[in-house]
Amino acid sequence: MPSIPVGILGATGMVGQQFIALLADHPWFEVAYLGASERSAGKRFTEAAAWRLPNRLPDDVASRVVETAAPGTAPKLVFSGLDSSVAGEIEAEFAKAGHIVVSNSRNYRMFDTVPLMIPEVNADHLKLLDAQGAAQGWSGRIITNPNCATVVLAMALAPLRQFGLTSTLVTTLQAISGAGYPGVPSWDILGNVIPHIGGGEEEKIETETKKILGSLASAAVQNHPVRLSATTTRVPVQNGHTGSISIGLEQKPNPEAVIDAWRAFRGRPQELDLPSAPKQPLVYLEEANRPQPLLDVNREGGMTVSIGRLRRCQLFDYKFVALGHNTIRGAAGAAILNAELLHAEGLL
Amino acid sequence: MPSIPVGILGATGMVGQQFIALLADHPWFEVAYLGASERSAGKRFTEAAAWRLPNRLPDDVASRVVETAAPGTAPKLVFSGLDSSVAGEIEAEFAKAGHIVVSNSRNYRMFDTVPLMIPEVNADHLKLLDAQGAAQGWSGRIITNPNCATVVLAMALAPLRQFGLTSTLVTTLQAISGAGYPGVPSWDILGNVIPHIGGGEEEKIETETKKILGSLASAAVQNHPVRLSATTTRVPVQNGHTGSISIGLEQKPNPEAVIDAWRAFRGRPQELDLPSAPKQPLVYLEEANRPQPLLDVNREGGMTVSIGRLRRCQLFDYKFVALGHNTIRGAAGAAILNAELLHAEGLL
Amino acid sequence: MPSIPVGILGATGMVGQQFIALLADHPWFEVAYLGASERSAGKRFTEAAAWRLPNRLPDDVASRVVETAAPGTAPKLVFSGLDSSVAGEIEAEFAKAGHIVVSNSRNYRMFDTVPLMIPEVNADHLKLLDAQGAAQGWSGRIITNPNCATVVLAMALAPLRQFGLTSTLVTTLQAISGAGYPGVPSWDILGNVIPHIGGGEEEKIETETKKILGSLASAAVQNHPVRLSATTTRVPVQNGHTGSISIGLEQKPNPEAVIDAWRAFRGRPQELDLPSAPKQPLVYLEEANRPQPLLDVNREGGMTVSIGRLRRCQLFDYKFVALGHNTIRGAAGAAILNAELLHAEGLL
Amino acid sequence: MPSIPVGILGATGMVGQQFIALLADHPWFEVAYLGASERSAGKRFTEAAAWRLPNRLPDDVASRVVETAAPGTAPKLVFSGLDSSVAGEIEAEFAKAGHIVVSNSRNYRMFDTVPLMIPEVNADHLKLLDAQGAAQGWSGRIITNPNCATVVLAMALAPLRQFGLTSTLVTTLQAISGAGYPGVPSWDILGNVIPHIGGGEEEKIETETKKILGSLASAAVQNHPVRLSATTTRVPVQNGHTGSISIGLEQKPNPEAVIDAWRAFRGRPQELDLPSAPKQPLVYLEEANRPQPLLDVNREGGMTVSIGRLRRCQLFDYKFVALGHNTIRGAAGAAILNAELLHAEGLL
Repeated sequence: MPSIPVGILGATGMVGQQFIALLADHPWFEVAYLGASERSAGKRFTEAAAWRLPNRLPDDVASRVVETAAPGTAPKLVFSGLDSSVAGEIEAEFAKAGHIVVSNSRNYRMFDTVPLMIPEVNADHLKLLDAQGAAQGWSGRIITNPNCATVVLAMALAPLRQFGLTSTLVTTLQAISGAGYPGVPSWDILGNVIPHIGGGEEEKIETETKKILGSLASAAVQNHPVRLSATTTRVPVQNGHTGSISIGLEQKPNPEAVIDAWRAFRGRPQELDLPSAPKQPLVYLEEANRPQPLLDVNREGGMTVSIGRLRRCQLFDYKFVALGHNTIRGAAGAAILNAELLHAEGLL
Repeated sequence: MPSIPVGILGATGMVGQQFIALLADHPWFEVAYLGASERSAGKRFTEAAAWRLPNRLPDDVASRVVETAAPGTAPKLVFSGLDSSVAGEIEAEFAKAGHIVVSNSRNYRMFDTVPLMIPEVNADHLKLLDAQGAAQGWSGRIITNPNCATVVLAMALAPLRQFGLTSTLVTTLQAISGAGYPGVPSWDILGNVIPHIGGGEEEKIETETKKILGSLASAAVQNHPVRLSATTTRVPVQNGHTGSISIGLEQKPNPEAVIDAWRAFRGRPQELDLPSAPKQPLVYLEEANRPQPLLDVNREGGMTVSIGRLRRCQLFDYKFVALGHNTIRGAAGAAILNAELLHAEGLL
Repeated sequence: MPSIPVGILGATGMVGQQFIALLADHPWFEVAYLGASERSAGKRFTEAAAWRLPNRLPDDVASRVVETAAPGTAPKLVFSGLDSSVAGEIEAEFAKAGHIVVSNSRNYRMFDTVPLMIPEVNADHLKLLDAQGAAQGWSGRIITNPNCATVVLAMALAPLRQFGLTSTLVTTLQAISGAGYPGVPSWDILGNVIPHIGGGEEEKIETETKKILGSLASAAVQNHPVRLSATTTRVPVQNGHTGSISIGLEQKPNPEAVIDAWRAFRGRPQELDLPSAPKQPLVYLEEANRPQPLLDVNREGGMTVSIGRLRRCQLFDYKFVALGHNTIRGAAGAAILNAELLHAEGLL
Repeated sequence: MPSIPVGILGATGMVGQQFIALLADHPWFEVAYLGASERSAGKRFTEAAAWRLPNRLPDDVASRVVETAAPGTAPKLVFSGLDSSVAGEIEAEFAKAGHIVVSNSRNYRMFDTVPLMIPEVNADHLKLLDAQGAAQGWSGRIITNPNCATVVLAMALAPLRQFGLTSTLVTTLQAISGAGYPGVPSWDILGNVIPHIGGGEEEKIETETKKILGSLASAAVQNHPVRLSATTTRVPVQNGHTGSISIGLEQKPNPEAVIDAWRAFRGRPQELDLPSAPKQPLVYLEEANRPQPLLDVNREGGMTVSIGRLRRCQLFDYKFVALGHNTIRGAAGAAILNAELLHAEGLL
C-alpha cells in the first residue's frame, strides 16, 4: 500500500471536514497538513473548528495544528475545500509552487486546461493537464470536480450520450448540506421550499454538464451539444440532491435499453478498482417511489447515483428521477476519487 | 345576506374539516348537516372525529350529531369531501335525489357533462350542467373542482392561453396535507423527498388541466391542445404545492407581457365579488427566491396563487415557479368558491 | 381612538419585523420611526431588510426611510427589539433623552427599578418606574418584558402562587424563531434536538421568573421564593415554546382547583380591555396530547398560553405541559401589551 | 464461529426489519425463519413487506418465504418484534413449544420470572429463567428487553446506584421511529411537538426502570427504590430518544465522580466481548450542546448511550441529558445482545 501524505485546504469548513472524515481510513492517503485562514492558524484542529459530522474525528487530526493555507510546508498533493471567495488566489499559489491541487471549488472548473472530472465519465480529460502548465504558468496542476448538483445529472446522462442526447430539462430538490455551514438558516427552510439557490447554481449545472460530457479533441474539450435548462430548489433534506429530469434522445431507444445503459455503466475507476470507486456507479431502482434521500443516498458509501421512475415524457422522450449524495459524490468523495485516479494513472 | 343551509359529506375527514373551518364565518352558507360513514353516525362531531386544524372548531358544529351520508335530511346544497373510494356512489345518490353536490372528489371530474371548475378560469363551463341531468339521469347536479396540484398549474396557465400555449412541463413539490389524514407517515417524509404520489396524480394533472383550460363548444368542453408532462414529488412541507414549470408559447411575448397577463388576470368571481374570491387571483413576486410555502401560501386567505422567477427556458420559451394552498385553493376553498358562483349565477 | 406615534429600534431584525407586523392594524399605535444600525440608515425599509414574515408588510413601513437608532427625531414611545449587544447603550441614550423605551431586550430586565412585566401577572410592578428616574438618572423610562421561554412558564405559574408555590422544574422544547435571523443553522436542527440554548437561557428563566412572580414591597420587588431549575432545548419547530413542568405546592389543591385557577386567571389587561389582551390568558386543554405548537400557538392572536396534561408527579405535587408563542406572547406582543398598559394607566 | 439459526417473529414490521438489518452480517446468528401474520404467509419477504430501511436487504432474506408465526418449523431461538396486540399469545405458544423467545414486546416484561434485561446492567437477572418454566408452564423461555425510552434512562442511571440513587425526573424527546410504521402521521409531527406518547409510555418508563435496576434476591427481582417521574414527548427526529434528567443521590458525589462512574461503566457483554457489545456503553461528552441525535445516535453501531451537560440541579442533586438509539439500543439491538448473552452463558 502506498502511504501518500496529503494536505487539506479549507480544513475547518464543511467540505474540509468531509475530506477528513472520508480520508480517516483511506488506504493510500494520509492527512499530513491542515490549511485554513489566518484566524485558525496555530490552533489545534479541535480549537479551530467545531466538528459537525456524525463520523468520528480521527485523533491525529483532532490534535494537529492548523496552518495558514499557503505553499511551503504542505505535501505535494492537496485537497481544496476552500470557499470560492478565496480559492482562486490560494489554489493558484499552490499550483505555481508545484502542488497538485485537487479542488472542489468552482473557480477553475471552466478554465480550458483544467479538467472538470467525473472519473467514470471523462477520465480522458486528464490529458488537459499536459497543456495546463504552459497555459497557466504553473509548475503544479489544478484538477476539479463539478458542482454537487451537476454530478448527479452528469452521471445519469453520461451513458445516454450513445443514444444521441439532445436536450435535458432538470428541476432539482437540493439538500441543505450543499450550502455548507452555517449555510441555510432554519428560519428559511424548516417546513419550506426555497425555489432558488444563489451563486449561479442553475448556470453552473448548465455549463459544467456540457464540459463534463464533452469530448477531448486535440487537447481541448469540445462541449457536448446537449441543450440544458435547470431550475434549482432547496428542500428540508439533510443530504442528497434529487433531480426530476426530462431528456430528448435522437435514437429513440426503448426503456429497457436505457435502463441497461445505466446498469452497465462502468468507467476507469472501476477498471482500476480505485479505493473510492463504487462497484456500480449507477443503480436503477424498480420501485415506483424511489430513489429517496433517506433510503438511497448512502449507497456504496455515497458514491453511487440512484435512478428511478423512467417513463415516457409527453414533451421529450423520457423522464426520470436521479439522486446522489451531495457532500460525498458531489464534493469531497468526488475530489478523492479524482486524486485516486491521478495516482493510479501515475500523475502524482 | 342570504342564509343558505349546507351539508358536508365526509365531514370527519380532513377536507371535511377544512370545509367546516372555512364555512365558520361564511356570509352566505351555514353548516346544517354533517354526513359521514356509518361508523361516525349518531355521534356528536367531537366524538366522531379529532379536530386537527389550528382554526377554532365552531361550537355548533362541535355538538352537531353526524349522520350517515345519504340523501334524506340533508340540505339541497352539499359539499363533498368524501374519499374517492366511496364518493362515486354516494355523490350519485345525492345527485339523483335532487341535491346540488359541490365535490372535491375526483370521481366525476372528467365526466362530459360535469363541470370541472376554477371559477376565474372557466366559469362558462357551468353551462355543462344544462345537459347533465339528462345525460346522467339526475334531478340534482354535480360540480367539481380540480386536484390540488392541478389548480396551481391551471391558474398560472390560464392567462397565458392568449399567447398560444403549446406545451407545459411541470415538476411539483407537494405538501403532506395533500394526502389527508393519517396520510403520509412521518417515517417516509421527515427530512426526505418522495419522488412519486400515488393515485394517478401525474395523470390527473395532465388530463384535468386540458379540460379546465378547454373551451365550451356546443355544450361540451373541447380540451385545450396544450401538451403536458408532469412529475409529482412529496416534500416535508405542511401546506402549499410548488410547481417548477416550463412553457412553450406560440406568440413569443416578452417577459413583461407575461407578468402583466398574470397580474391583470381576473375572472367571474372578481366581477361578482364573491365572498371567497381573492382580489387578485395571481400575484407575481419580484424577489429571486419566491414564492415560498411558509411566506406566501396564505395570501388572500389561501385563495391567491403566487408566481415568481419568470425567465427564459433554454428548451421552451419560459420557465417559472408557482405556488398555491393545496387544502384551500386546491380543495375546500375551491369548492366553496364553486358554490358561491352557483348561487350568484342563480343556479342553486 | 388615540393615534400615538411610536418608534421601533432594531426595526430590521426579526423582533423589529414582528413589531411592524403586530402594529400594522393597531388601534392606538402608529409606526412613525424606524431605527436601526448605521448600515441601514438612509435606506428605505425594503432596501435595508428582507421581510421574512408571512404577514403583509404595510406599504407605509415598506417605503419609510430607516434612521440610525439614536434619540432626536423619534417619538416619545419607542419599542426596542435591539440585539442585546447594543441594546444596553442605545436604550439608555433614549431613556436619558426622555423617551419611554418598551424593550424586549434582556439588558435592563434585572435592574432594581426596571419593571419586568407580564401585565396579567404583575401590573403593579409599574410602580418601580417612580424610582427609576432618580436611580438611573433618566428623564425617560425603560420597561421590559421577559425572555420568550420565561413568559410561558411565569404565566402558567402565576395563578398557582395562591397554593404556595415552592418549587418548579422545567424542561423546555423551544422553537427556532426564538433565535432570530439567521439564528439556528438548518444543518444543526433539521431532524435534530440541540439540548442547549446559548446566552444563559436557563439562568434567565430561573432569575426572571422569580422577579416577575415577586411582590412589590416599598417600591422594590421582593423575588418570589420558588426554587427553580430549568433545562432548555431547541427543537425543529417554527413557532412555539413548550415546557414540561413539575411543581411543588404547599397547600395540596386537588387537580380541579388547579385547572380552575388557570381558567379563571385574569389580570389588569383584561380589566382594561387592552387591544392586545387575550380574553383568556390561560387555556387548559382536556385532550391528552395537547397543547401542540402547530395547533395551539396562535390562540387569541398568539397571546394566550395553552396548558394541558395536568397530573400527579411522583416527585413533586403536579406536572403539566405549557405552550406559548415565543415571538408574539414572548417578544413583540409582550412589549406591545406593556405599552398598552402604560397608556391605559396614564403613564405615557 | 458458531452458526446458529434464528427465527424472526413479526418479520415484516419495523422491528422485524431492524432485526434483519442487524443480523445481516452477524458472526453467530443466521436468519433461517421469518414469521408474520397469515396475511403475509406464503409470500416471499419482498412481496410481503416494503423494505423501509437504508440498510441493504440481504438477498437470502429477500427471497425467503414468510410463514405464519407459529411453532413448528422455526429454529429454537426466535427474536420477536411482534406487535403487543398479538405478542402475548404467540410468544407464549413458542415458549410452550420449547423455543427461546428473545422479545422486544412489552407483554411479558413485568412478569416475575421473565428477565427484563440490559446485559450491561443486570446480567444476573438471567437467573430468573430457572424458575420461569415451572411458574409459566413453559418448556422454553421468554427473555425481554425494555421499552426504547427506558433503555436510555436505565443505562444512564445504572452506574449511579452506587451513590444512593433516590429520585429521578425525566422529560423525553422521542424520535418518530419509536412508533413503528406507519406510526406517527406527518400531519401531526412535521414542525411540531406532541407532548404525549400513547400506550402507557410514561408508566412503562417508571415501572420498567425499577425492575431493571433492581437486585436479585432469592430468585426474584426486588425493585430498585428510586422514585421516578416521567413525561414523554414526540419530536420530529428520525432516530434517537433524548432525555432531560434530574437525579437525587444520597452520597453527594462531586461531578467528576459521576462522570467517572459513567465512563468506567462496563458489564458482562464487555467482559464476554459479545459481538454487539459496545466497547464503551456510556460516553460522556464535554461539549455544552451534546448529545444530539444527528451527531451521536450511531455511536458504536447505535449501542452506546451518550450523556452530556452534567450540572447541579437546584431541586435535586444533578441534572444531565442522555441519548440513545431507540430502534437499535432500544429495540432490535437490545434483543440481539440479550441473545448473545444467552449463548455466551450457555443458555441456548
